[in-house]
Amino acid sequence: MIAIGIAGYGYWGPNLARAVAASGCARVEMIADRMESACGRAALHHPAARLTEDIYAMIADPAVDAVMIATPVSTHFDMAMAALRAGKHVLVEKPMADTPARAAQLVDEAARRNLVLMVDHTFVYTGAVQKIAALIGNGDLGDLYYYDSTRVNLGIFQRDVDVIWDLAVHDFAILDRLMPSQPVAVSASAATCIAGSPANMAHLSVYYDDGAMAYLNVNWLSPVKIRQTVIGGSRQMVIYDDMQTSEKVKIYDSGATAGTDPYEPMVSYRMGDMHAPALSTKEALLTEVQEFTRCVEENATPLTDGISGLRVVEILAAATLSTQSRGFPVDLVQKKVA
Amino acid sequence: MIAIGIAGYGYWGPNLARAVAASGCARVEMIADRMESACGRAALHHPAARLTEDIYAMIADPAVDAVMIATPVSTHFDMAMAALRAGKHVLVEKPMADTPARAAQLVDEAARRNLVLMVDHTFVYTGAVQKIAALIGNGDLGDLYYYDSTRVNLGIFQRDVDVIWDLAVHDFAILDRLMPSQPVAVSASAATCIAGSPANMAHLSVYYDDGAMAYLNVNWLSPVKIRQTVIGGSRQMVIYDDMQTSEKVKIYDSGATAGTDPYEPMVSYRMGDMHAPALSTKEALLTEVQEFTRCVEENATPLTDGISGLRVVEILAAATLSTQSRGFPVDLVQKKVA
Amino acid sequence: MIAIGIAGYGYWGPNLARAVAASGCARVEMIADRMESACGRAALHHPAARLTEDIYAMIADPAVDAVMIATPVSTHFDMAMAALRAGKHVLVEKPMADTPARAAQLVDEAARRNLVLMVDHTFVYTGAVQKIAALIGNGDLGDLYYYDSTRVNLGIFQRDVDVIWDLAVHDFAILDRLMPSQPVAVSASAATCIAGSPANMAHLSVYYDDGAMAYLNVNWLSPVKIRQTVIGGSRQMVIYDDMQTSEKVKIYDSGATAGTDPYEPMVSYRMGDMHAPALSTKEALLTEVQEFTRCVEENATPLTDGISGLRVVEILAAATLSTQSRGFPVDLVQKKVA
Amino acid sequence: MIAIGIAGYGYWGPNLARAVAASGCARVEMIADRMESACGRAALHHPAARLTEDIYAMIADPAVDAVMIATPVSTHFDMAMAALRAGKHVLVEKPMADTPARAAQLVDEAARRNLVLMVDHTFVYTGAVQKIAALIGNGDLGDLYYYDSTRVNLGIFQRDVDVIWDLAVHDFAILDRLMPSQPVAVSASAATCIAGSPANMAHLSVYYDDGAMAYLNVNWLSPVKIRQTVIGGSRQMVIYDDMQTSEKVKIYDSGATAGTDPYEPMVSYRMGDMHAPALSTKEALLTEVQEFTRCVEENATPLTDGISGLRVVEILAAATLSTQSRGFPVDLVQKKVA
Repeated sequence: MIAIGIAGYGYWGPNLARAVAASGCARVEMIADRMESACGRAALHHPAARLTEDIYAMIADPAVDAVMIATPVSTHFDMAMAALRAGKHVLVEKPMADTPARAAQLVDEAARRNLVLMVDHTFVYTGAVQKIAALIGNGDLGDLYYYDSTRVNLGIFQRDVDVIWDLAVHDFAILDRLMPSQPVAVSASAATCIAGSPANMAHLSVYYDDGAMAYLNVNWLSPVKIRQTVIGGSRQMVIYDDMQTSEKVKIYDSGATAGTDPYEPMVSYRMGDMHAPALSTKEALLTEVQEFTRCVEENATPLTDGISGLRVVEILAAATLSTQSRGFPVDLVQKKVA
Repeated sequence: MIAIGIAGYGYWGPNLARAVAASGCARVEMIADRMESACGRAALHHPAARLTEDIYAMIADPAVDAVMIATPVSTHFDMAMAALRAGKHVLVEKPMADTPARAAQLVDEAARRNLVLMVDHTFVYTGAVQKIAALIGNGDLGDLYYYDSTRVNLGIFQRDVDVIWDLAVHDFAILDRLMPSQPVAVSASAATCIAGSPANMAHLSVYYDDGAMAYLNVNWLSPVKIRQTVIGGSRQMVIYDDMQTSEKVKIYDSGATAGTDPYEPMVSYRMGDMHAPALSTKEALLTEVQEFTRCVEENATPLTDGISGLRVVEILAAATLSTQSRGFPVDLVQKKVA
Repeated sequence: MIAIGIAGYGYWGPNLARAVAASGCARVEMIADRMESACGRAALHHPAARLTEDIYAMIADPAVDAVMIATPVSTHFDMAMAALRAGKHVLVEKPMADTPARAAQLVDEAARRNLVLMVDHTFVYTGAVQKIAALIGNGDLGDLYYYDSTRVNLGIFQRDVDVIWDLAVHDFAILDRLMPSQPVAVSASAATCIAGSPANMAHLSVYYDDGAMAYLNVNWLSPVKIRQTVIGGSRQMVIYDDMQTSEKVKIYDSGATAGTDPYEPMVSYRMGDMHAPALSTKEALLTEVQEFTRCVEENATPLTDGISGLRVVEILAAATLSTQSRGFPVDLVQKKVA
Repeated sequence: MIAIGIAGYGYWGPNLARAVAASGCARVEMIADRMESACGRAALHHPAARLTEDIYAMIADPAVDAVMIATPVSTHFDMAMAALRAGKHVLVEKPMADTPARAAQLVDEAARRNLVLMVDHTFVYTGAVQKIAALIGNGDLGDLYYYDSTRVNLGIFQRDVDVIWDLAVHDFAILDRLMPSQPVAVSASAATCIAGSPANMAHLSVYYDDGAMAYLNVNWLSPVKIRQTVIGGSRQMVIYDDMQTSEKVKIYDSGATAGTDPYEPMVSYRMGDMHAPALSTKEALLTEVQEFTRCVEENATPLTDGISGLRVVEILAAATLSTQSRGFPVDLVQKKVA
């Protein structure tokens, strides 16, 4: 059973610790958080784990096989690098690092040491995204035309990251899993409505090398919470509404095709059945922890490996750059797994 | 009673004719359409109107006081100009013309001849937009932060215009009515999923001179029809969902404000009551026809005058330009009523 | 082409006349309404039809092959009987008559004269009900457990009938089409909230001879309009929501089955996929008129024949009786087609 | 701080224990459950509580001031009676007892010993029901016409109680809080779709002495979960949808009034604004535990006292009786607080 050290026990760390405890294939060996109060809460829920306020001490602890990092983004690089250099496998909260260069360094370090480096792109492990990935993989949607996502709610304004790094990161992680081609450019606009706080709303257009488009609408200042994604394909289309308790994924056998007869309308429409498949109800985080431990044990590459984490950070950085010039398109250098 | 000539009896002309007949303040004097079959249908519903397949003959007819133009966009300029030169008041379908230069010429011609030039920005006359305009005008929403609209459905692919000129034009007309400041730049992306047809999906970001933003998402290839606009203000926020049969406009007493105490969270949230006011159920087109006849009789300026039509065409043209370079932002020259 | 006489041109008559004109297999020969104003409106829309304020004259007119009756319920019997005695085929608005005895007399008269007697149970001809009938007929739902319908809205309070005869009649017509067994008893409660007006809300429980149940909730005084029916079967379940513009019929592959192992839970659940089939968009009234003309031409029995109209009136009358004693159950004598 | 003993640590007991621990005004002194495994779970979450598999020993323990009973319904009477006789205050899970006679005995015993007897009618303490109670109390709804509730879902079939005692009990508890008058009769139908299991669906009509009606639709075999209640009043109407995460309570300024002018329509309609007030988000169970401890400390009568528990059991028993004769109405003897 793999011995896990949890770095950071604020908002997300407790979820990771709980998933590890429930996984049956790993145990919470240590929990580290700089705040004494966080350690107190950790003790209550994980009485068997050792606690420390010194995260680097935990990283260095020989009883720890792997480290899960759930600290602020700006500290991801230092901690993940320290853990890799200490020979530990690493699962790091998204976004993997605050710059593409630092993300790339982590990828290199993990490769050199033959350690598992995985990013916590949690949505990738949900029943909904797994189902959509299978549909696309099977060709059920046909050619992928677009991915159009609205991810808005009231709050929480973050201090250290803007709405793109906080919310759009989820869509970029999902896109990295779903899209069959690579993004080549991004155009983004962003604005803040509350003076002095990071950008709280943004709209992003992503261009793919096969002509597909992705559109993201993220906002911390919406009166209602919306989590809705429309995915258009040449054969079928999907609506993924994460706010629904049932029927989260609806598959529409609808579309349009170019006419070939010059005497007929240019485009003909098809409005067919709708199908909402039953989805796996297994908790995403549990699936993810099991994927991590499997990769550690089998020396395998996780679905959301460091390279995918790097690709997501690269596009986040490019989007930020574009917002600084009102949507000026920023080209993306394509990163493929070697 | 003002004598109206209807130019074009295809998709929209019958609605104009019906509204004129129902208005009580104007009558359908003539209907002109190049298609004999269209004239046949017109004869059935408006037995008292004179019919012709020669639109310019109708424009020149001395019995006609004013002309309503519901022909393809590319013909708007020629017909409206002919009507103005014949001394007729003009109501022209949106968009007013296919280029800003031509729209400006119509504005000048109407001004020189002291004729009413009005654009058929129908949504401006709905109970929903009237209510929202009143809320903004009263200051109920506070400072306007953003307008974020989704206007998508399956079909109808147009032959002569793309999705921006077909669907986004509605939002630009509404924005022209609602926004207290002027747009200064637009960044837009667009793509077509059906080879050989006009762009069927587009995302537009509009920058206003007071810092407000407008976002438009338009698509002819969505599996479901959505007509939803979120408007964020510093005091209240609005959701306008035109697909609802009741509660189309919801006003949320919710928001976020910057904290002033450095020991408190940076931003504090307020989630208050929601209010869905009863809206006028009077048909928008009827209100619009009555506005037109009132302006003709009183020599007044309509709410959606030629200048507003020009502003809308200018931003449409700028958006189209931006799409040609993947969202490169295009500046807008501000046009104010002299 | 069958020559139709329309009796009554108030609320529903214009719809019948329009459907006849559009059917391609019948023509509006005459329209009769006691009100001069109604005849005026009829003349406008059906210039080729002869008009009269004397309905019985129209019934007697030799040029009329068949009569469609859309007058108040209390007059259905007299007019339908007169038409049958004049040798005309009859389509009568629902409910067929105001008492079971009168409905039975009409059935007998039509049988004796070998004339088509059809009831305008419009919902039976909708794409939604046709689809559900096919599902049940194919055994897709398994054994039918229950039909549970909510049919509520604000208004219109009728003068001559209560909410059971106005709204529940639709469900009884649908049930007559869908249910594989016969109703054996009904228990109903009703009340009026507006003193002096007919009962505006009622709840009805209908017991079927195979153990199935139907529940109807009808109300003229609901703040929102609801048209939702849940149909539970042993294999699948259906939700039919007539207020949806798309996905009116949803089929759930969900259910519960009795456990057989005493050491396991008594009942086990199944929550599977949901499927929303594309439905025919053909107008129900058009289908109905074509069914009527087909039966006239082929001397066939319509899907909603006089017997089905009689069964519906019998259960309406029994429900009314039950409401007079706070839900005391009233037995139904089973009427089968001979 | 009041010392609480929790009897039963199965489904609901853990919630009670958690609420006590969070209340700040009581502590979990003991937890008793006949199952060793339940005690094990209790130990994990409430390490400071003493545990026992002998519930009666806990009831007798002098360190326990008050007992909360969350065991199967059939055991409520014996345990609550034992606790009262041991001089303990009692909070008992709903329904309070399995017969009205037993519920009445508990009320008498508590009164004789001057002990607090409270029933866990949790919904009464939700922000939604509190708001609706305030609206009715203020006269905002006018005269109450009806309460119409749909409470359906797939599962859980209970072994020891049918759907009326499992689900309708919630509505009877809410009605007991909301309705200004007393129920005088109930008519109910029920059926089971799974042979050998308790009735899984039921429809109930409740007649009140002021003419108001309550209708309940409960079902364990619905493909979707619905928790929706419509409340009609002469001035305003309410829709309470407990499945919504926001806008659970909507108040409609709509209604109908009898016309007085014989030349006008009999009933006129009003469709006004809709208002969704912000609701208290405090957990209902926490409010309830605080109400219980307040009443113990102040020797006060709780909002959901034994008398209200008795009234609810009486109507449950009457409804069950009615179902045995297909909706034959059963009169209720009115029970008022002395």
